[in-house]
Amino acid sequence: MADADLLDPSAVVAGMARQARKAQVLLARMGDGQRVAGLRAAGRALRQEEAAILAANARDMARGEAAGLSPAMLDRLRLDSARLAAIAAAVDAVAGLKSPLGEVISRDTRPNGLVLERVRVPIGVIAIVYESRPNVTVDAAALCVRAGNAVLLRGGSEAVESNRALHAAFVRGIVSEGLPEDAVQLVGSQDRALVGAMLGGAGLIDMIVPRGGKALVARVQADARVPVLAHLDGINHTYVHAAADPGMSRRIALDAKLRRTGICGAMETLLVDAAFPDAPALLGALMDSGCELRGDARAQAIDPRIKPASDEDWDTEYLDAVLSVAVVDGLEAALAHIAAHGSHHTDAIVTEDAEIAARFLAEVDSAIVMHNASSQFADGGEFGLGAEIGIATGRLHARGPVALEGLTTYKWLVRGNGQVRG
Amino acid sequence: MADADLLDPSAVVAGMARQARKAQVLLARMGDGQRVAGLRAAGRALRQEEAAILAANARDMARGEAAGLSPAMLDRLRLDSARLAAIAAAVDAVAGLKSPLGEVISRDTRPNGLVLERVRVPIGVIAIVYESRPNVTVDAAALCVRAGNAVLLRGGSEAVESNRALHAAFVRGIVSEGLPEDAVQLVGSQDRALVGAMLGGAGLIDMIVPRGGKALVARVQADARVPVLAHLDGINHTYVHAAADPGMSRRIALDAKLRRTGICGAMETLLVDAAFPDAPALLGALMDSGCELRGDARAQAIDPRIKPASDEDWDTEYLDAVLSVAVVDGLEAALAHIAAHGSHHTDAIVTEDAEIAARFLAEVDSAIVMHNASSQFADGGEFGLGAEIGIATGRLHARGPVALEGLTTYKWLVRGNGQVRG
Repeated sequence: MADADLLDPSAVVAGMARQARKAQVLLARMGDGQRVAGLRAAGRALRQEEAAILAANARDMARGEAAGLSPAMLDRLRLDSARLAAIAAAVDAVAGLKSPLGEVISRDTRPNGLVLERVRVPIGVIAIVYESRPNVTVDAAALCVRAGNAVLLRGGSEAVESNRALHAAFVRGIVSEGLPEDAVQLVGSQDRALVGAMLGGAGLIDMIVPRGGKALVARVQADARVPVLAHLDGINHTYVHAAADPGMSRRIALDAKLRRTGICGAMETLLVDAAFPDAPALLGALMDSGCELRGDARAQAIDPRIKPASDEDWDTEYLDAVLSVAVVDGLEAALAHIAAHGSHHTDAIVTEDAEIAARFLAEVDSAIVMHNASSQFADGGEFGLGAEIGIATGRLHARGPVALEGLTTYKWLVRGNGQVRG
Repeated sequence: MADADLLDPSAVVAGMARQARKAQVLLARMGDGQRVAGLRAAGRALRQEEAAILAANARDMARGEAAGLSPAMLDRLRLDSARLAAIAAAVDAVAGLKSPLGEVISRDTRPNGLVLERVRVPIGVIAIVYESRPNVTVDAAALCVRAGNAVLLRGGSEAVESNRALHAAFVRGIVSEGLPEDAVQLVGSQDRALVGAMLGGAGLIDMIVPRGGKALVARVQADARVPVLAHLDGINHTYVHAAADPGMSRRIALDAKLRRTGICGAMETLLVDAAFPDAPALLGALMDSGCELRGDARAQAIDPRIKPASDEDWDTEYLDAVLSVAVVDGLEAALAHIAAHGSHHTDAIVTEDAEIAARFLAEVDSAIVMHNASSQFADGGEFGLGAEIGIATGRLHARGPVALEGLTTYKWLVRGNGQVRG
């Protein structure tokens, strides 16, 4: 792949995808125990190769600093012993999950005696296009392999050496247990045309998962001719209803906004019911914790420290200690605001009124709807799915945190004894 | 819509889709009993409007004959009392199906007390682009409505008057039970630009289902920026293994090829094992029944009536009394032929060897794999799903016959009592 730039990008991707398809067939036919053994060996290899991986990462870091990457990007790029140990542990965790392959989703015997089963099988060849975080190289590879899929990994140029070192260790591990090397391929060249060829790889690549900034996701969603599993925005609302518990509202709002401001599950808009009596304390607690509030006129009337919100604020994912605040008159107004400005990711209500909560959960059209909980729980690990390949806000195939099951499809098995339709 | 041609096609489709979205929200919130009552009323309305519907169809038929449509197309277009009664009965059948909405797909209580549920919900706004058969207007509308979806219907110009009459009766029925009129909209104009606008309706339309000829499906798959549920080809193989029962092989082959040659589940290629002793009788029976056989050299050696197959024959969906025949040496050769030429639709094996059958079912990568049965069973009705919206050969979301469940997605409901991630 080193001289990919010299070749036709479509031919390069097609060649990798065909090798991946062959490897995927072998991977899918072997027993799950062998896939598990391969992942455990990959985890060991990652630990054994710590020196080489951290040295490669140090070279990426040096290049990134010289290139003036932001402190946030450098932090996402940086590996150390603890972070590498966590990456290896995540592989072991995926090895410890229950395999979805072979699960009989439905079974029926027809009046004519035909026995129908829907059985879970791998999707096939999956492409991951990602930025900065080198751990995605390993997380995505582990999930895809466990679900019987081959994967093409295209990381960002800033992490190219880290990704090569992580990929080399991972593949050495799975190959030591007889898994096919081509099941996990790294698109080594940084030629941007290769990404275009991957997005155009209909028939060669079965699904593309973009992981990274909004620009990357938007490009993939706009240009892909292959099904895409992704979310563009996490414009998540928390609606504090009139009958919300004041203390719980503060705890949830502070956690949903400030625990980590940079994750897609963070709250970006707070909807406060006009009949909620404790609004001043709620908004004050957020500002006292260092959060900038941008509110509509009624919110500003609650506390002079609240800045005016522009029209854009209601559609903005800050990923920072900034929050838009609107005062709403009851459930219908909250639902209307979320329908107008939400991104179908994660929206929550805080209330002690079970009937209102049930209506909110039923009527908000988002991948995840929550009652009396922090939106920062929108995470595959917190959902008990193990590592996640991503969070999807589309409507088809998989929604919300996507892990092993979302990396499978099914086939119909029909068993007869000579039936004809006649 | 009559003057759609005078308007910007994108604006026309966007307007219809927004109305559909509003109607879908209302449709999804009402009880399933009301949706069922609406469908039963639609069935009654179709019967009550028989005279008007058949008169409209007669005008389409006259226009079609004048335009020189093929007898096959005219037959697909033609309605009579019996066919209309069957269309109305299909609506009643959909009303009698179990609703997938609200089904709890999975439920889990996390160690922190959060209760997670995945619950089935409608997809949203679905577009159907189809040709000739007017029954699709009603079948698709019934399935979409029962699953809580709004639908935009774009039929072919040859059936425009039939579709308008069927749509008018259907909508009169559902509205009489309080279902929203805009839940089922017919794109009345035949302006082809409207189809382009539908294919480009990302964010407005959640899924597109093309129903019709290969040219239509290929165009939709190539141009759609919206998820597509479809199959392009049904190049279906039946592999008669060495250990196949001779009589069963003949019955299955004759049914799979000749019961109806024009359906996507029809067999198009017969793979005969070189070690199958009864090949001459099998191939003879097909030819004696009026089927043209095109074979490789070894097949031709079995019977001089067999014509030579060209390279294209192995990749051709005849949809006619024509069959390509190849002699293969064992399971691996059969699997290799299917992998090289199949369309991932429906492939079958005939054998008394359970181990060989299990390997075929596991290793053939098709939406439907069958053992000792005719591929003509590849049908939602035969699978017990009721009417089908289509058969999908893609890998994501739904595979094989797609009915109510394939017209749903899910959302995550998270119920807490104040949990924060901390």
